[in-house]
Amino acid sequence: MEFAEFIQTAKVDNVRLRTPFQAAVEGTLCITGHHLILSSREEDCAEELWLLHSSIDSVEKRLAGPGGTLTLRCKDFSLYYLDIPIAEKCLHVASSVEQLSNIDNFALKYPFFYRSSFEVMEDGWQTFLPETEFTRFKECSEDWRLSYVNKDYSVCPSYPRAVIVPKSIDDDLLIKVAGFRYNGRFPVLSYYHRDSKSVMMRSSQPLTGPNGKRCKEDERLVNAVLGIGKRGYIIDTRSPNWAKLAQAKGGGFEPEAHYPQWRRIHHPIARGQVLHESLIKLIEACNESNASMDKWLSKLESSNWLSHIKDILYCSCVVAQCVDKEGASVLVHGSEGTDSTLQITSLSQLILDHDCRTVRGFEALVEREWLQAGHPFEVRCSKSAFAVTKHRQESPVFLMFLDCVWQIWQQFPCSFEFNEDFLTILFQHAYSSQFGTFLGNNEFERKQHRLTAKTVSLWSFLNRPEVLQEYLNPMYDPNPSVIWPSVAPQSLTLWSGLYQRYQIDLSPQKEAWAEIVKIREHDKELRSKVAKLRRQLAALEKEAVAANVILPEGLDPKEANSP
Amino acid sequence: MEFAEFIQTAKVDNVRLRTPFQAAVEGTLCITGHHLILSSREEDCAEELWLLHSSIDSVEKRLAGPGGTLTLRCKDFSLYYLDIPIAEKCLHVASSVEQLSNIDNFALKYPFFYRSSFEVMEDGWQTFLPETEFTRFKECSEDWRLSYVNKDYSVCPSYPRAVIVPKSIDDDLLIKVAGFRYNGRFPVLSYYHRDSKSVMMRSSQPLTGPNGKRCKEDERLVNAVLGIGKRGYIIDTRSPNWAKLAQAKGGGFEPEAHYPQWRRIHHPIARGQVLHESLIKLIEACNESNASMDKWLSKLESSNWLSHIKDILYCSCVVAQCVDKEGASVLVHGSEGTDSTLQITSLSQLILDHDCRTVRGFEALVEREWLQAGHPFEVRCSKSAFAVTKHRQESPVFLMFLDCVWQIWQQFPCSFEFNEDFLTILFQHAYSSQFGTFLGNNEFERKQHRLTAKTVSLWSFLNRPEVLQEYLNPMYDPNPSVIWPSVAPQSLTLWSGLYQRYQIDLSPQKEAWAEIVKIREHDKELRSKVAKLRRQLAALEKEAVAANVILPEGLDPKEANSP
Repeated sequence: MEFAEFIQTAKVDNVRLRTPFQAAVEGTLCITGHHLILSSREEDCAEELWLLHSSIDSVEKRLAGPGGTLTLRCKDFSLYYLDIPIAEKCLHVASSVEQLSNIDNFALKYPFFYRSSFEVMEDGWQTFLPETEFTRFKECSEDWRLSYVNKDYSVCPSYPRAVIVPKSIDDDLLIKVAGFRYNGRFPVLSYYHRDSKSVMMRSSQPLTGPNGKRCKEDERLVNAVLGIGKRGYIIDTRSPNWAKLAQAKGGGFEPEAHYPQWRRIHHPIARGQVLHESLIKLIEACNESNASMDKWLSKLESSNWLSHIKDILYCSCVVAQCVDKEGASVLVHGSEGTDSTLQITSLSQLILDHDCRTVRGFEALVEREWLQAGHPFEVRCSKSAFAVTKHRQESPVFLMFLDCVWQIWQQFPCSFEFNEDFLTILFQHAYSSQFGTFLGNNEFERKQHRLTAKTVSLWSFLNRPEVLQEYLNPMYDPNPSVIWPSVAPQSLTLWSGLYQRYQIDLSPQKEAWAEIVKIREHDKELRSKVAKLRRQLAALEKEAVAANVILPEGLDPKEANSP
Repeated sequence: MEFAEFIQTAKVDNVRLRTPFQAAVEGTLCITGHHLILSSREEDCAEELWLLHSSIDSVEKRLAGPGGTLTLRCKDFSLYYLDIPIAEKCLHVASSVEQLSNIDNFALKYPFFYRSSFEVMEDGWQTFLPETEFTRFKECSEDWRLSYVNKDYSVCPSYPRAVIVPKSIDDDLLIKVAGFRYNGRFPVLSYYHRDSKSVMMRSSQPLTGPNGKRCKEDERLVNAVLGIGKRGYIIDTRSPNWAKLAQAKGGGFEPEAHYPQWRRIHHPIARGQVLHESLIKLIEACNESNASMDKWLSKLESSNWLSHIKDILYCSCVVAQCVDKEGASVLVHGSEGTDSTLQITSLSQLILDHDCRTVRGFEALVEREWLQAGHPFEVRCSKSAFAVTKHRQESPVFLMFLDCVWQIWQQFPCSFEFNEDFLTILFQHAYSSQFGTFLGNNEFERKQHRLTAKTVSLWSFLNRPEVLQEYLNPMYDPNPSVIWPSVAPQSLTLWSGLYQRYQIDLSPQKEAWAEIVKIREHDKELRSKVAKLRRQLAALEKEAVAANVILPEGLDPKEANSP
């Protein structure tokens, strides 16, 4: 744990910090093992920087005169300029920050060093256990069960220790099926839809390979889901060509001959580097100042970001439609089953199940369908839109999911318990955090590093009432229906609150939200004031009646006691 | 007043009305001189059509089987389908509606026939008289005066009977200046900025012509505005080339040699047919179903609508900056001074003066800078995005102004007393209305047709409290500052609430607004309940004290009386 070797200069005086829409502030810059800190000398000045190195995506240095300027671009698209008066110090700071923000050693990550300043009332690590979550689907417990076949993560390293599978399928069979599915990701239950009694499952691709290998056990498991005469849909998130290409390399898809009750539909969704490059282009376009309207719109178009959003939302709506309108069960997979598959299964649930639109329900959704389902956060979110990537495994798959949630959120602004900032904070913590929640690529890795014991969960922090109230939607009006978002391109817009936070001053919009919250709170206060006055009035009346006082005119004792 | 000749079929039974996001409704279709009416036979059914012929932009007929379908596209972009069971009737209805919606005879317009069902409490025709409005600028009454030189509209037919001019300039001189300005539109005061004591004036182009004619009186008037040593800006809304072209045809611009205290800046803004075609392309793009994201964005781009918005907003900000930051006076004109000139002068005022962001203030702005200033509503708004235009004078100049207001509104959602629907209703009434407000091209025409006596003013209708409350912004928090909208292309978005009302189901968004309004109203109710309970408590206490009753514990008489 020797950070010292990376820190060439621990302290620099007279550094000026500039950041968009904020007054510049001067102070002393300190570099610690995990943070870049700017302390202003003015005591009443709140503008201090307290930045995790791991949140920095790129550092750019430019020397000018005796000193220089560092541009820090963060993974959450925030932007800081540091004017450092001495060139040498400027270079030292740059290379220190660069090295510290690129430390690969897992054990050196900040969550292992972070000690919460709040008392953990409810341990977020224990809030969304598979056992608890399974009780959500209790209506289907006749047909489905929790299996611990993967309790030591040997059957499928990217699956959690407990998964939900058909009751009629035993663990031995699951092990055989795992051998026939890419990386062992055999089909498991993702969602049970009460209204239609249909289910949504997910898996990875079957390993049919170029010779069309079969696996009777896999066929048994998949077919076990459907009743006699019932039909289901396999939603493949790859194009038919891509699926064939995967087959030639040992992967594949379910031939209808062997899965006769299932109809396979391809809904290709962009993934991997394509998404990553799309994000880079989008952020470039957003950051371009003095662009003409034409150029902006054509850059927005050529980033393809909104096209990808549309494809994902469209596919999610198709799945939700199968489940809700047709009452059919669905199996979703692409190749690995850890990326686009999860986007689709989680968004369909958000559409179908109002519970996912509450704070708790959404956290549970992220836990079930992303964290426990084995989305590799560690490699996908290691870099963002500015860094030169090393591993080519970076991809804003989770961000895109959040963006899709935002699109639905803004189409149904009363149907979500949380506000836009809640989505933003999840995005930020997925990329850099003091909490352990998004560390590691799957539950197995989190177990190996003993994260539950050694780090604090993001949910422990977020679910405290004083924190949570910042993320509540004042317009929330619970809506138990399935909600059908429009996926017409004209309905989708850029999430400027996220991508343009540092290009557009959004403070007037924030004020509007604050205004709504204020009204709501005032409403609450008045209610309790009314209740209190009524109690006082009732008490006084009682005394008055007892003392035979004639009640003043216009005083209706009934009204004073009415609810 | 013989409408009968146009009505080939006055009544058709069993007509089915379809309109987006509404259940279809069947009933009897009636054609009257001014309306297309569908009365449903179900008594509890509220979905009836009551459409002004003048609001219809295009009628499309398609026969199929024994009957046919009419598609009615309205000037406000709304859309109705009528399934008519008999082909002949279908053709009759189509040709009747087509003729009735294209009657040119001014005296036959609906406002002359409309009798208000409400009592006019405050006559909108008298609410915004030039005399009343001039009192707004009382701080400048030392230097400026109301002139009635145009009282019979002979000096400038498109000006109102009273205009504000420098006190040092007499009416005879004004008449001479009018002769040197296109269509007699001599420079008049548009706005006085208290903070900087600078003014904004507007006019049409000077008629310098190819030989560089001068007019000493014009120079005197324009220069009279500036104090000694002060400088001002002439903002020309044409490109330098266009201005030169205009000069060759007898128009022109102010050479700096003869207006030495003024600096001329060109900020070209699209106008006329270019805007009209832009709107057609925009609405086409919005209406295209099943477009891909790429196609939508590229069509949105090639419509140029948002580029035009950006140009207008940018120029308005420049003017506001000159007036507020530089404390310089400004003269704005293009060629005719009736279109882009008014966009700029009205938007700058909206930026500079918080009073324009109230309902009253905005109505006054529309009166002063559009209606009295002689924007030719009659010819500009005779057709919208669907009709084949005859006159080529149609242009959505006013709509574009409202769109720019919306852009500022959505950037500063707490700074406006009115909501989005208020802008929409002004747009609708500018294109088709039962009220006389937007009839005619200028005050002179309105006088000739005796509109104030023969028709009802839109303001009489809108300013009734029960109507107005629908158009109030629940988040309004008066902000006396100058507001600076961002004009970065990334900050401007499409006003989907207007252009896509019939493509996207906006009811969830409307619900959100209704929710905010509901909370606000509940708040009001609770306040009065608190007040009432306090009064009761105080009265009861008085009685109790008089009767020597011991007050119950916890009852603090002071608190009961606190505000």
